[in-house]
Amino acid sequence: MRTLKVGLIGLGQIGGGVYRLLSGKSAFLKEQAGVFFDLTAISEKDPKRLKILSARFRKRVMPAEKLIRSRDVDCVIELIGGIHPAKEFILGALRNGKDVVTANKALIAEHGKEIFAAAGKYNRRVFFEASVGGGIPVIKALREGLIGNRIESVFGIINGTSNYILTRMSREGLGFSEALALAQKEGYAEKDPTLDVEGIDSAHKLSILASLAFREPVSLSDIACEGIRGIDHSDIAFAAQFGYVIKLLAIGKKTAAGIEARVQPTLVPRNHMLAKVDGPLNAVFLQGDEVGDILLYGRGAGSKPTASAVISDLADIALGRKMVFNPWGAQRRVGTKPVSAISSRYYFRFSVIDRPGVLARISGVLGSNQVSISDVIQTERKSGNVVPLIMLTHDTDEKAVKQAIRRIQSLPVVKGRPQVLRIENEN
Amino acid sequence: MRTLKVGLIGLGQIGGGVYRLLSGKSAFLKEQAGVFFDLTAISEKDPKRLKILSARFRKRVMPAEKLIRSRDVDCVIELIGGIHPAKEFILGALRNGKDVVTANKALIAEHGKEIFAAAGKYNRRVFFEASVGGGIPVIKALREGLIGNRIESVFGIINGTSNYILTRMSREGLGFSEALALAQKEGYAEKDPTLDVEGIDSAHKLSILASLAFREPVSLSDIACEGIRGIDHSDIAFAAQFGYVIKLLAIGKKTAAGIEARVQPTLVPRNHMLAKVDGPLNAVFLQGDEVGDILLYGRGAGSKPTASAVISDLADIALGRKMVFNPWGAQRRVGTKPVSAISSRYYFRFSVIDRPGVLARISGVLGSNQVSISDVIQTERKSGNVVPLIMLTHDTDEKAVKQAIRRIQSLPVVKGRPQVLRIENEN
Repeated sequence: MRTLKVGLIGLGQIGGGVYRLLSGKSAFLKEQAGVFFDLTAISEKDPKRLKILSARFRKRVMPAEKLIRSRDVDCVIELIGGIHPAKEFILGALRNGKDVVTANKALIAEHGKEIFAAAGKYNRRVFFEASVGGGIPVIKALREGLIGNRIESVFGIINGTSNYILTRMSREGLGFSEALALAQKEGYAEKDPTLDVEGIDSAHKLSILASLAFREPVSLSDIACEGIRGIDHSDIAFAAQFGYVIKLLAIGKKTAAGIEARVQPTLVPRNHMLAKVDGPLNAVFLQGDEVGDILLYGRGAGSKPTASAVISDLADIALGRKMVFNPWGAQRRVGTKPVSAISSRYYFRFSVIDRPGVLARISGVLGSNQVSISDVIQTERKSGNVVPLIMLTHDTDEKAVKQAIRRIQSLPVVKGRPQVLRIENEN
Repeated sequence: MRTLKVGLIGLGQIGGGVYRLLSGKSAFLKEQAGVFFDLTAISEKDPKRLKILSARFRKRVMPAEKLIRSRDVDCVIELIGGIHPAKEFILGALRNGKDVVTANKALIAEHGKEIFAAAGKYNRRVFFEASVGGGIPVIKALREGLIGNRIESVFGIINGTSNYILTRMSREGLGFSEALALAQKEGYAEKDPTLDVEGIDSAHKLSILASLAFREPVSLSDIACEGIRGIDHSDIAFAAQFGYVIKLLAIGKKTAAGIEARVQPTLVPRNHMLAKVDGPLNAVFLQGDEVGDILLYGRGAGSKPTASAVISDLADIALGRKMVFNPWGAQRRVGTKPVSAISSRYYFRFSVIDRPGVLARISGVLGSNQVSISDVIQTERKSGNVVPLIMLTHDTDEKAVKQAIRRIQSLPVVKGRPQVLRIENEN
């Protein structure tokens, strides 16, 4: 029987899950893959986390600097997250002739070029299925299952925390802060939720998916990124009146004018499959020229699903899977399309003083900027009060919208900052 | 650059798609996989089908018997379907040291044991991604992506023809025969639709999925199989009144009492993700002990999606992927649970003479057989006429239902054969 000697760096939520899986399912994995995954070395700085180890494995604890050099390790699993020292550990492991498995989306997204260059130089492999979509084998589907396809778009819900917050806002009529507090209480959001709710985590994952899909590096700076902090519960209610739900979508599309890449809260038709993706779940559509639309759906985070993805990478390494096309080493070909050139339908919510002529005034500004209105809701008619005015547009480009909004915002009858969201009607 | 010399048997719908992909995307595939897929030999008995070949490839046409022995072929793609002579070609190819890619679900389902034994004997590989779910990489997900999981269930919609027919019946209020005629006209059903509408195609595919999932052979004879011919458009309308849609589901579940495996038209809640899978689309849920529920969704048939799956197998062969656990060579462990022991909720439609006391009579028989009713619809009260009586039950086992139905069928006020369908409420 083949043996793969595995060194594990990090015993946090995911690392703990990998330890439990490798130590608890050893016989099962032998039968499944024909491989003994021998966990020969473990590194973890926090002594509290070492408590999960059985006596046998406690003897195998060593500093990461030693683990990545150990002759007793064929493959290093990096699960500490963040850029430093994760990057140094991975580069060190490659230099020492180890293959690498990681769940580190920020690192792959921001330093993919350097990491895959090192992998090439030392003729080693770096696999990262767990970096996107938790246990959903989306990277495997993209790189292997759809290898004969030119990918035209990749889009979906790839941040469970934001989706959980939006789902609770939608179901219970909560405001963002209340829903965030609940998500934190229930372990779906971290104490500092910035990466998740600002869309940065989604952007990291989109950077990886879009690079793989479009076969050239799509970096974080190529991605227009907007989070969900600005979503008011009234937006969710108004969207529902028009038959939409609001989801934080990550969208990558290849067009003749360049690659579109953006993370934005978006109105999705209620009968769209993505509208049914609730709570902490993830779902990704992949659109290929041969295969059409494929949807993959499942738990996008958590200890066990993510460990499942890590094990899949380990098995691929043990079974000799080779690296295929590396987008991070590729030249830019198509380039990125500026978000200002991306046209779509829009949702606006203005806070206006309810006074005769206001609707005509605002419609006039939109019209003179070539922004064409499809639907309007004006509620609570109490003369002189500030009331919401909701407008949906036909397809419009962002430049026209920005000009019109700037002008509308300066009108004395308009109070506060207008809410501007995109609508996706495809599929 | 690596070269894989490929021999293609069969230039029908799928074979033609594979030819077009290999001949038209050669440069793209070289970049994607680092492999030149050299189509060195082609076999097709029907001269009309040879017309799609360019002059260069027309020179490479030869009889299949010669192709499987050719020194110029490393890997044979079998796309003629059916059992004979496909089986002989595959066994011959293995004996001659070739790897094999096939889309032949009937062959794998019915003769998997013999085929994989030969593959083992000659140390060759047989890959069959295209046999289930068209271009959806469901076998790859099951065998590789979820390799660390014990699979608890696999279920979904895996026959596009039946789903297309049910969708049209549901959307347009058509009867089965009308919807079938439309499906045939539009190329979604074959002239002889037996395999599809009787559930046999789904059972072949479920046999493959369940064997892989549960790691022991689940053969066609283990699968309770019922098609959609008996579905009346009134069933679809009544189901809708209760908030359900009718789908032909293939269900495999591992329970302590054995493996459940069945293909049956089933009532699915309207808000379930499977209820949204319309037309010729397929969708499969895989439930793993680590990963939870994964859904894969996409086009389950057609020339291009199926060719996409064949190319994925070819790339895996070229890139050295090894065969993992072979369920067809495994011992039966858990065994199959008889369908009579599977409990679920039920939908009944009786045709009854509308006369006082009929409801009490039928409810009485159900009650005395321990079948508990949850919902009733009795419409069109025209005394003395035959009217439909619809009943939904709580969880009941099939044995009790069969006894009760036999008794009810013998009542003089009950006309014709009662309709009996299962309801799935999970997820």
